[in-house]
Order: sequence, then C-alpha cells, then structure tokens
Amino acid sequence: MSLFRPCVERMKGYTPGEQPQESGWVKLNTNENPYPTSPAVLQAIERAAGRLNIYPDPLSTPFRKAVGELFGINPEWILPANGSDEVLTLLMRTFVGPGETIAYPYPSYVLYETLGEIQDAQVKRILLNPDWSWDLPRAKAELADVKLLFVPNPNSPSGTLWSDEDLLALVPPNGLLILDEAYGDFRDQPHRMELLKSGPGSRIIVTRTLSKSYSLAGLRLGFAAGHPELIAGMRKVKDSYNCDMLSLAAGEAAIRDQSAMLANRGRILQTRQRLTVALTKLGFNVFPSQANFVWATHPDRPHRSIYEFLKSNRVLIRYMSFPHAVGTGTQSAPAGIDGLRITVGTDEQIDRLLVVLEKA
Amino acid sequence: MSLFRPCVERMKGYTPGEQPQESGWVKLNTNENPYPTSPAVLQAIERAAGRLNIYPDPLSTPFRKAVGELFGINPEWILPANGSDEVLTLLMRTFVGPGETIAYPYPSYVLYETLGEIQDAQVKRILLNPDWSWDLPRAKAELADVKLLFVPNPNSPSGTLWSDEDLLALVPPNGLLILDEAYGDFRDQPHRMELLKSGPGSRIIVTRTLSKSYSLAGLRLGFAAGHPELIAGMRKVKDSYNCDMLSLAAGEAAIRDQSAMLANRGRILQTRQRLTVALTKLGFNVFPSQANFVWATHPDRPHRSIYEFLKSNRVLIRYMSFPHAVGTGTQSAPAGIDGLRITVGTDEQIDRLLVVLEKA
Repeated sequence: MSLFRPCVERMKGYTPGEQPQESGWVKLNTNENPYPTSPAVLQAIERAAGRLNIYPDPLSTPFRKAVGELFGINPEWILPANGSDEVLTLLMRTFVGPGETIAYPYPSYVLYETLGEIQDAQVKRILLNPDWSWDLPRAKAELADVKLLFVPNPNSPSGTLWSDEDLLALVPPNGLLILDEAYGDFRDQPHRMELLKSGPGSRIIVTRTLSKSYSLAGLRLGFAAGHPELIAGMRKVKDSYNCDMLSLAAGEAAIRDQSAMLANRGRILQTRQRLTVALTKLGFNVFPSQANFVWATHPDRPHRSIYEFLKSNRVLIRYMSFPHAVGTGTQSAPAGIDGLRITVGTDEQIDRLLVVLEKA
Repeated sequence: MSLFRPCVERMKGYTPGEQPQESGWVKLNTNENPYPTSPAVLQAIERAAGRLNIYPDPLSTPFRKAVGELFGINPEWILPANGSDEVLTLLMRTFVGPGETIAYPYPSYVLYETLGEIQDAQVKRILLNPDWSWDLPRAKAELADVKLLFVPNPNSPSGTLWSDEDLLALVPPNGLLILDEAYGDFRDQPHRMELLKSGPGSRIIVTRTLSKSYSLAGLRLGFAAGHPELIAGMRKVKDSYNCDMLSLAAGEAAIRDQSAMLANRGRILQTRQRLTVALTKLGFNVFPSQANFVWATHPDRPHRSIYEFLKSNRVLIRYMSFPHAVGTGTQSAPAGIDGLRITVGTDEQIDRLLVVLEKA
C-alpha cells in the first residue's frame, strides 16, 4: 500500500530549468538577471547576519512597508513569501480544495498545473490563439467553475502582454484572478497595482518576485499584493517564519534602491532589442517581448537540435514544447508547438549566443 | 460566498511566540540559542552573496552531502527545507489527504494541529500521562487509522525524552512516525539516526532544524531524513527552489563546524542545570530537561501572573496552557494544565530572570 496521497503518487513533479553548478556556461535558460544586485543589498545582508540566532519578524513589517510605499498601498495588502513560487503554493492551499478547478492560459507557465495536481485540483488549460491572444468569449465561458485563474503578464514563454481590459474581463465570476507579474518590471509601462485599486480589484491578487528584475533569484523572495481580507487568509496558511532574516533585510534594501534595479532593467531592454533584431536576421520569428527573454521559432530548423547544438557549445537556452496547444492544428484537435526561450543576458553573453547560432 | 477553503475559513491560525523587534528584552520565550553561530557560517554567507542573481541548486547537493556525512547516511535520505516548519508542512501535503487522520501526543507542539487543519485532516490528540510518559496500550489502540504520528523528542513544553523502545512501539501500522528532533542536539546522548537504520526505519522520518543547536533561527533551514522513496515523494511536492543560496551555504558551513555547535551546546547544558536547581529552590517543580528549555510549574502561584510580572520587567518567557490535558482531571474528563516554558539563555540572562523571579 502506498503511503503517498494518490494525487502525489501519480504526479511526475515539475522539472525546473537546468542549473549547472560548475562555471563556464553562458546561462540563458532560466530568465535570471545577468547583472549583480544593488550594493545596498549586500550591506543589508552583512548587517542582518549578525543576529541569525534569533527568529525573523513573522510579519516581515519593514519589508512590507517598503513595498507598500513603492506601490502606494497599505502594508496590510502585502504578503511576503519564499519567491513567488511560495506565493503560488499558498494561493492553492488557501483557496483551492480537492476537486475544485483552477485554470491557466496555454501555452504558459506549466508550474500552475503541477501545483494544482499537488492540491488534487482539476486543472483547465484555456487555449490561446496562435498569436498568443485570448479567445475571450470562449475563455469566459470556461470560467464559471474556476476558483483561481493564473495569468502571467507578460506571459512566458511568449514574452507578450495582455491589456488591462482583457485581464479585467477574465476575473472568474466565482473566484480570483491571479496576476503573475514575475516579469512585470520589464514591461515598457510596468503595472503599478492600479488594477488592485479598480472595481474588480478585490477579486485580483498580484504576485511579484525579486528574482528577476532585482537580480535576486538566489535569495527566494516574492510577495502577493491583494485585498487585506484575502491576504489575512493566506497569512493563516503560511508558516510563521516563512521568510528568513537575510532575505527580508536584502529585499527591503533592494526595493528601496529603485535606481539600481532600473539601471539593470534599462540595460536588459536595450539588449533585448538587439537580440530580437539579430535573431530575426538569422531567420527566426521573434515575438516582440515585454519580458527579459524572447520566444524564438524557426520556420524550418528543428528547435531541439538548435538547443542541443548551443548546449554542446556551453550556451544554455530553454527548449520548450507544448503538446496539444493551438499551433497548426484545429481548435478541436490542436497540435503542439515548440520553440526556444532565450533569456536576455549581457551583451557579451548574447554575442556568444549569436556566434554559435550562426555556426548552427 | 467565502472564497476560502472551509477548513481555512474556520481555522484560527497558529500564534508563534512573541518576537519583539526592539532591543532591551531578556528573550527566553522561543527557545533560541543565545550564542552566535560559527564564524565559518558568516564567511560562507559573504561568499555566497556575490552570486545571488542566479537560482540556487534545486537539489541542495553540498548541504545534503554534509548532513549525510555527519550521520553516516546517503544524501538521497535528506530533504532540506525552510526550517523544520516547512518539513512538517511538506509531510502533510505529501502524505495526508483531506479527512485522513494525523495524531500527536498532548500536551505537545500544537503547530501539528494547525498544519492538520490547513490540510483538512482529522487531528487526534493522544493524551500523555501526568508524568509525560505514554500510556502505550491506549496510544497503540488509537493508531490504526493514523497516517502520520508526530512525536517531538525531546518533547516541548516538558523537555522530556521518550525511549527508543517507546518510539518504535508507536510506529503507526498504516502510516509513518514523524520524529521531530528540533531539540535533539541538547539530549545527553543525541540520536544519530540509528532508528532510521532499524527494522521499522523505513516507516520513520526524522525532522531536524538548524534553528536551535546551530544558532540559526533567523536563517530558516531544516531537513527531513528518511527512506529515499519517501524523500523522493516529498521532493515532488516541494517548490523547486525552496531553500535559498545563503541558507544552503550557511547550513553547510554550520554542519561542517561541529565544534562550534558543541561548544554552545555545552554552555547551554551547564546553564540548564543551574537554572533547574535555582527554580527548584524558588519552589517550582521542574522536570529534568533534555532540551534547551525547562518546563516549570508552581504549586500555588498562578503561572500567568508570574509570566506577566516577568514581562513587565522586560523578561520574556512563555506561558502555556493546554486545555483538556491530563493534569488533575480524570482520563474521561481531563482538566487543563498550564505552566511556564523558559528557554535556557546565557548565564547573564538567567541571572536577570532569577532576580526578577525572586521579587515576584
């Protein structure tokens, strides 16, 4: 007799992007920021390291205050967690019972599906149009029984953005819209939590991470922003000390040093433009990206072999395939799509990528 | 209509010990180690802080290796997590479905009950004898439907220890024994994972934290040790990057510097002895403790008012009450018990405590 819950027994588990532990790689596969974080962050870590024998503040008050000031919202609207991964997990555990339904657009971030499986939820993929837009009437027809609809904006792997109008139309009538803004700071016009202050705002929770724009993937810090009543429920579910003292100190310093984040963001946006042009010249189709990565497809070269050739040259990008997506199939029998997701690294990293790609 | 899961809606949430954020307190309420961690830990944090823009190793390989070497077990037997709190949460999410039963001895660590509520589990309190021993025949009769039995050893708040024989007798016939060794390093003879290597070892999972003996409560790092098949299932449920880069580097350094941990442990054991004698002289009943705290009761002074008097003098200890425990009641209508749990601080902190207690 298996001791595991049946939903855990049958699931495969999520496979994160490769994380080679040795150096020498041009690593463009997990959307990390290639630039170091603010020096103020390192100072904050050094200061906090002196009192590690004591528990952290279970309410993360100074960090929440810094985030609240940044977005002009009350700290009661903020729940910090171990990366936005933990925010997503807490959302599932707070709002979704076994057998209940979650949904997400497809192709998109398949981790939502894994988290749904762990919670023994029904998972609905809402198929996107081939140009990554929503088929809104069909999507809305699917939302009646949805407790949580997860929408990454910008989307991964496409890097595309949906409009506020689309998002507001997608708030489930009996549930919540989870707006995953992991890549939000790389938009031309970042969202400043205005949607939370709109009419349907009490039915929206925004998730954010410091992994990408603040160059802190190694630190594991993210947060949810939403109506205080929703946040209070999530707080009951989180571990008392879910965020450690170093992360909270570092996170506060990072949030308070907007100029460091914005300087790195500016560099990445410039390189993104250069990468997009260069890939297009090499014959790739590249969707205009609002994130720190681009989604590239090639009309006649197999994507997997491009990925493998790059890898054999120590350049790591992400090959992604989405079975049963829209692609070239019909709505009733959709075919799969695949392609290459390439993180926007430094100019030097992108030079190296392009040199190897030209050889391919 | 509430959007929360009914089990979350109706639960109260766990209240951790007070964590005053201002200085000036003698803090003896949450079993923190009063001594600083190893200098090697601070060096490891400084080194790791230089590459925070990259994700941590999702498998935490060097940390697992260090733990494996310490206990003479394969790293495949180890699952690191954000404090043993997260280990406990992962155990629930991996093994306990809604409506299934968990159990724990009572009075003990009531967080198990909160975690059970979040998972919508049935929670069974197995009443201990008034001397904190198990009523083994009765306990065993209650275990048939138990998926997870959580047993802290040493127990909190009593600081008492149960024998290996008792523990082996308590492995649920259709579930797992979770041996919570948060305070295990403070035992006269610490458990070296021998129980995992015993016959019923494949039905036991040990949880450990670096919060207490390694002076790293602020870091949030703990781990599960158990049969690789059980650990592999838990790995599917954890977030990919549940442990951050700084914690893993610090934890590895801490585990590899046993002499620093053992020196602090030695000091705490000496002070524990002194505290026990002094409290007894003041008229308290103190159980011989094998942890870094003592449980003190007084025959005729109300415990809550002692706690409050100490608090008004900036000495923080923990007042704990357990309704429906054994105490002075009968087994069928048990009364509550209450008392004072006092962390073993430095000698100076204990001096201050005793001065104020004498005034009380």
